[in-house]
Amino acid sequence: MRVVVVGANACGAKAACRVKRLRPDAEVILIDKDDLISYGACGIPYYVSGDVATENALRETSFHVVRDEKFFTSAKGLTVLTKTLAEEIDRERKVLKVRYLETGKTDEISYDKLVIATGSVPKVLPIPGVDLKGVYTISSLHSAIEIKEKIAKGEVENVVVIGAGFIGLEMAEAFSDLWGLDTTVLEYFPQVLPQSLDYFTARIVENHLREKGVNLVLNARIKEIKGKDGRVVGVETEQGFFSADLVLMAVGVRPNSELAKKAGLLVSPQTGGIIVNDRLQTSDPDIYAGGDCIEIKHLITGKRVVMPLGSLANRQGRVIGTNIAGGVATFPGAVGAFIMKCFELAVGGVGLTLKQALAEGFSADYALNNQTERSHFYPDAKYAYYALIYDKKTTRVLGFQAVGPATDGTLARLHAISSILPYKPLVEDLVNLELAYAPPFNSALDPIHDTAHVADNLIQGLFQKIEWDEVLKRMKEGDPNTVIIDLRHPKEAEYLTKRYPNCRHILYQEFRNHLDEVPKDKELILICNSSRRAYEVARWLKAHGFQKVYVPLGGISFPRRWGEEVR
Amino acid sequence: MRVVVVGANACGAKAACRVKRLRPDAEVILIDKDDLISYGACGIPYYVSGDVATENALRETSFHVVRDEKFFTSAKGLTVLTKTLAEEIDRERKVLKVRYLETGKTDEISYDKLVIATGSVPKVLPIPGVDLKGVYTISSLHSAIEIKEKIAKGEVENVVVIGAGFIGLEMAEAFSDLWGLDTTVLEYFPQVLPQSLDYFTARIVENHLREKGVNLVLNARIKEIKGKDGRVVGVETEQGFFSADLVLMAVGVRPNSELAKKAGLLVSPQTGGIIVNDRLQTSDPDIYAGGDCIEIKHLITGKRVVMPLGSLANRQGRVIGTNIAGGVATFPGAVGAFIMKCFELAVGGVGLTLKQALAEGFSADYALNNQTERSHFYPDAKYAYYALIYDKKTTRVLGFQAVGPATDGTLARLHAISSILPYKPLVEDLVNLELAYAPPFNSALDPIHDTAHVADNLIQGLFQKIEWDEVLKRMKEGDPNTVIIDLRHPKEAEYLTKRYPNCRHILYQEFRNHLDEVPKDKELILICNSSRRAYEVARWLKAHGFQKVYVPLGGISFPRRWGEEVR
Repeated sequence: MRVVVVGANACGAKAACRVKRLRPDAEVILIDKDDLISYGACGIPYYVSGDVATENALRETSFHVVRDEKFFTSAKGLTVLTKTLAEEIDRERKVLKVRYLETGKTDEISYDKLVIATGSVPKVLPIPGVDLKGVYTISSLHSAIEIKEKIAKGEVENVVVIGAGFIGLEMAEAFSDLWGLDTTVLEYFPQVLPQSLDYFTARIVENHLREKGVNLVLNARIKEIKGKDGRVVGVETEQGFFSADLVLMAVGVRPNSELAKKAGLLVSPQTGGIIVNDRLQTSDPDIYAGGDCIEIKHLITGKRVVMPLGSLANRQGRVIGTNIAGGVATFPGAVGAFIMKCFELAVGGVGLTLKQALAEGFSADYALNNQTERSHFYPDAKYAYYALIYDKKTTRVLGFQAVGPATDGTLARLHAISSILPYKPLVEDLVNLELAYAPPFNSALDPIHDTAHVADNLIQGLFQKIEWDEVLKRMKEGDPNTVIIDLRHPKEAEYLTKRYPNCRHILYQEFRNHLDEVPKDKELILICNSSRRAYEVARWLKAHGFQKVYVPLGGISFPRRWGEEVR
Repeated sequence: MRVVVVGANACGAKAACRVKRLRPDAEVILIDKDDLISYGACGIPYYVSGDVATENALRETSFHVVRDEKFFTSAKGLTVLTKTLAEEIDRERKVLKVRYLETGKTDEISYDKLVIATGSVPKVLPIPGVDLKGVYTISSLHSAIEIKEKIAKGEVENVVVIGAGFIGLEMAEAFSDLWGLDTTVLEYFPQVLPQSLDYFTARIVENHLREKGVNLVLNARIKEIKGKDGRVVGVETEQGFFSADLVLMAVGVRPNSELAKKAGLLVSPQTGGIIVNDRLQTSDPDIYAGGDCIEIKHLITGKRVVMPLGSLANRQGRVIGTNIAGGVATFPGAVGAFIMKCFELAVGGVGLTLKQALAEGFSADYALNNQTERSHFYPDAKYAYYALIYDKKTTRVLGFQAVGPATDGTLARLHAISSILPYKPLVEDLVNLELAYAPPFNSALDPIHDTAHVADNLIQGLFQKIEWDEVLKRMKEGDPNTVIIDLRHPKEAEYLTKRYPNCRHILYQEFRNHLDEVPKDKELILICNSSRRAYEVARWLKAHGFQKVYVPLGGISFPRRWGEEVR
């Protein structure tokens, strides 16, 4: 059996090696147009920053051998053809036509099974100036090497990153934090990570980026990239001109499905991804495809989507390898779990955002929670921020977001939720979730539980929520029909009560003795750090006949971390 | 409605407050025989160590108010009776008979609904000397305060901890690491954490304890606790005499179900736990019970067990509160997830150990894996050790264990597994698990995936495993019928090849060119750090006609971390 694999990164390399392990008798040919293969692409920002010293470190095995052609040949027993472009598939003859890029010569390679793992290509904005020197996308490790060399030589002072997605933000940190470059991030949407977070979590990230000295411009409208003598000098936007010796365009990727399309394989007109079944076979059963170039099933919406994530590509490679070797493996789809480090934050999410859930037609709603990652009495317990997206009618869990310190605490909560989401859990199932506990690691009730409790209490109609933006507006405008009651320690409450005329203070633990101070004819908004105390007092006020009592979700820690003027 | 709750810690306090929040009109009476209530019992080791400065810190809310009688009265609206012993339940008259411990007077309190949250009591060994001064159990916060005062006064130099369970080991760390006391741990079983780990993970913990200076005695047979003038001076065992100014007995707890038994409620003769239904009602529907004193369903075995964990007690409290207030909530059971810090390690597990699984009649087997917690190229990526227990016939996942650095990485893997275990996943479902990835937090394939791959490869019969103890034996004895091939870098292999005559070196990535060096008439054992390379070479050797090829699980890092003389 001869297996030909096109693309020697995450999915392709994995598929090739897995076939060879299962069927050592098979001939496996691994082809890539590049000479740098099988590198940890998700590690590029850490290579550029210098955290990872050399590009070879991204290419090494855990036992420090570089995964080059020689390695795959001698250690893995593969035939490796680098700098080799797969140009065409002749499916009738089962032949792959290739071009050797160094010599320009063409060749034909016959196959029994073919794997397309051609990945994705970075999108390029349709604006003037994208071809100027100094304008980059992260299309391969080569561009990262070029960028790092340029910075190391001292040729860069100002950087503009276009796009505040994962790669844009990770690279912005590398530029700004570790090289000390003046870094501007331009984002078209009104928030960072627009495909991945909602405003309530995104604003925490935005505020943190600004605190860290990144010049973040949201709602950016780019006109053109300006150059001088063929080199970039800056980016012209409706918001002004931003000088730049280096521009990184990180506005997403599209599936590299050209080879498949040309071969007449089914490719989705909507997503551009190659259409595969659960076994990861294309419309030609002898041709498999995996990684960034395919369309997969979204396990929440049931729709076909592209999800260019390295974790999925690796898993898909194993599935393909098993199937080609005669086994049975399936890739049922994904819920879209992601995590990233952003300066001193860990930021992650899974499933649908509130925006996405509403757009999909769900009766979506959300709950917020903030809590220390460890037991609050444990030394150095730091706060993390959580959001749960659910369907009000069915109480089904649709998504989850977390922003916390750059520990593994955020990973822990994401791992729990992404693991069960395919089982279509209800909010009640999160309330019932069993999660290990010890004070150095979490609270007796994990943050997941308390976030689910907020959702459960909302579903049961136990309190009425109000948006923080609305609270801040009424606060700043001094809305005379609203009284905002701060339930915290008097010293904490001072900041608001001194500034805003409709803010009052009644201490939570003495509230029951101060009922006469609560105005009966006003809308009441109850405030504390996490909204736990506020919820409790709201329950009690409702029992005493107060109807217009509102609790903003997640406590005042949320707007404080957004950078609002509250404490 | 009057609700009476007996026991004002995790479960009881939670149930009482939840009822009051849902039904502010209800009268809720919270009773405890102690005056210190609602403290974070799991935080006691950190209080004793000094990490948590005062006992009040364990009793405080997250907003730093002590949860004393006054707090529960004024903030929560409960009636609180401390130093009040619940002596008897008259179920016909729906009356609780209590004794006020300060005055000795008795009283009757009628109830509509009663909650029994009486917790557990520490077991005491049936040996002479347990009543000596200086011999403690952690029966309440009072004993912790007494212990800490005694140490702070300089009255303690030598400590003996009896029992290497969670509390025993956590307290041993507090004594040894933070107070610098000479600390001996005596464990009856041949391993630490015998109810929670198997030997492959336990030995890592044991070696770490010894490295940290703890005198760990396994298979300990205690004869008596010796005293002088009524004060403890040491512990006499078959292994010798251990001096001690302080002895802590931490040999487990039993459910405190006396009150229930006396009232004629169903109590399990096997476990001693109060029998409840999924709504946490006892055999009297007006009496609920939760926390350490009840029996719950083990979701892997289907059997009824007691599982004294603070995390479960808190969740049960909420369920009881909801049900009493007229809602519907259930506690379906538990899979037994735990985590603990042990010096610089995080140690955790969930489900059944291999021993337990075999005893339950499962066709249990296990897989091991060691891997860096972060991408191996990421700075300061440290190794963690994983074990997966599964059923060979059905491939059902039965349990999981992890030992790693004291980060939240172990929590992350446990959270994933404990979340899905109730859904009865197969090994294949772990292979398919979706887990967020970024290099600062994990690898493209999470350690869970790679551990599941080992299990999957074992299930598929892709390689033959061998126990490390057997390998070490053959190594040390120089078994002439065995050749052990070290596949690592020559410098790594030197340690073994110089010491053990049947150890040879063939470099992994050159193995395919050295087939002639492999003896055809010997049993072959392949060795590398994680057994990934060994597995790959084993596949290849098998394809070349070698039949007796063995791969020890998890790589040589396992026995190295057990303290064996290997590198």
